[in-house]
Amino acid sequence: MIKDGLKRDIEFIVELDKMKSILRQTNLIDKSRREDDAEHSWHISVMAMVLSEYANENIDVCKVIKMLLVHDLVEIYAGDTFCYDVEGNKSKKKRELEAADKIYGMLKEDKGQELRNLWDEFEEMKTKEALFAAAMDRLQPLFSNYYSDGGTWKKFNVTKAEVYKRIAPIEKASDELWEFTTNMIEDAIKKGYIKE
Amino acid sequence: MIKDGLKRDIEFIVELDKMKSILRQTNLIDKSRREDDAEHSWHISVMAMVLSEYANENIDVCKVIKMLLVHDLVEIYAGDTFCYDVEGNKSKKKRELEAADKIYGMLKEDKGQELRNLWDEFEEMKTKEALFAAAMDRLQPLFSNYYSDGGTWKKFNVTKAEVYKRIAPIEKASDELWEFTTNMIEDAIKKGYIKE
Repeated sequence: MIKDGLKRDIEFIVELDKMKSILRQTNLIDKSRREDDAEHSWHISVMAMVLSEYANENIDVCKVIKMLLVHDLVEIYAGDTFCYDVEGNKSKKKRELEAADKIYGMLKEDKGQELRNLWDEFEEMKTKEALFAAAMDRLQPLFSNYYSDGGTWKKFNVTKAEVYKRIAPIEKASDELWEFTTNMIEDAIKKGYIKE
Repeated sequence: MIKDGLKRDIEFIVELDKMKSILRQTNLIDKSRREDDAEHSWHISVMAMVLSEYANENIDVCKVIKMLLVHDLVEIYAGDTFCYDVEGNKSKKKRELEAADKIYGMLKEDKGQELRNLWDEFEEMKTKEALFAAAMDRLQPLFSNYYSDGGTWKKFNVTKAEVYKRIAPIEKASDELWEFTTNMIEDAIKKGYIKE
């Protein structure tokens, strides 16, 4: 006899397949196509494993990984909002809150709430784990752009000020990663990938 | 001054982008295209979070997730070997061991070894965490096939005996997931997705 909770878990897992069809603006480094949410979520989760030693504070890396694995689930219904899309970002919060109710509501109450709490914590960006998770989320597309001759920076004429605003969590999360990131960005400006 | 270890970490992270271009035989549930290794690794990592309560033994879910995040990295160099490809599986072990030396060798010794240990443990499939991780790895493509009218089962004329051999870790890892899985497979046989 299969329990109702397990049936709901499976329906949730099957629904998550849609993450593989939510496209981000960022391209793969080999420029072959745009990256999707499932790929991005995997990449930043491994990054957290590899880079946690550089966190300024002692962090619970397991919690960071769990946060990163679910941080974009709302985009199954709310879609990916490009970080430099001013109009889209005005309605983003409302769309994502409705999506969160829907996707986490698929699970039984306690389990849905546990995952929802991870997403809420990530979004609030106040705890040291949420900050480090946000740093991974901001850092990964920089690699995609830098190692593909400018990527979306060039395509959308992104300015230095916009990039620095976007990556602020990295500065708070890790001095070493911040030093690395600023070096990379200054070099990207020199190369003409990012506008002064 | 950027440390050598951090530079190597970044090179490793950039190299991992290639996981997004390693195609598996399995299709997405919507049948639009084949799934890649990054997507698969993400999906089974979230599955471990959601399904860990059904493990027969008390497992360290964080370790399971870390194992699943890196379990396919060797395929960057060794390629994906289809589980029902008899010839390909003869040379798989040798190819993957060489690939493991290469990919984990990109990192500094202690960090490379830590990740390599996770992969070795997964491959040996002896600990309760490795068994549960293998169960996730085997279960996810069943969903892809079942919810897309037979998928690779039908395409490659896979038999009931082949499927049951492949999914053996699920039986050892979780009674509840095993019951669910066998129900699904018996139904897939009735529907003509899997050959008797």
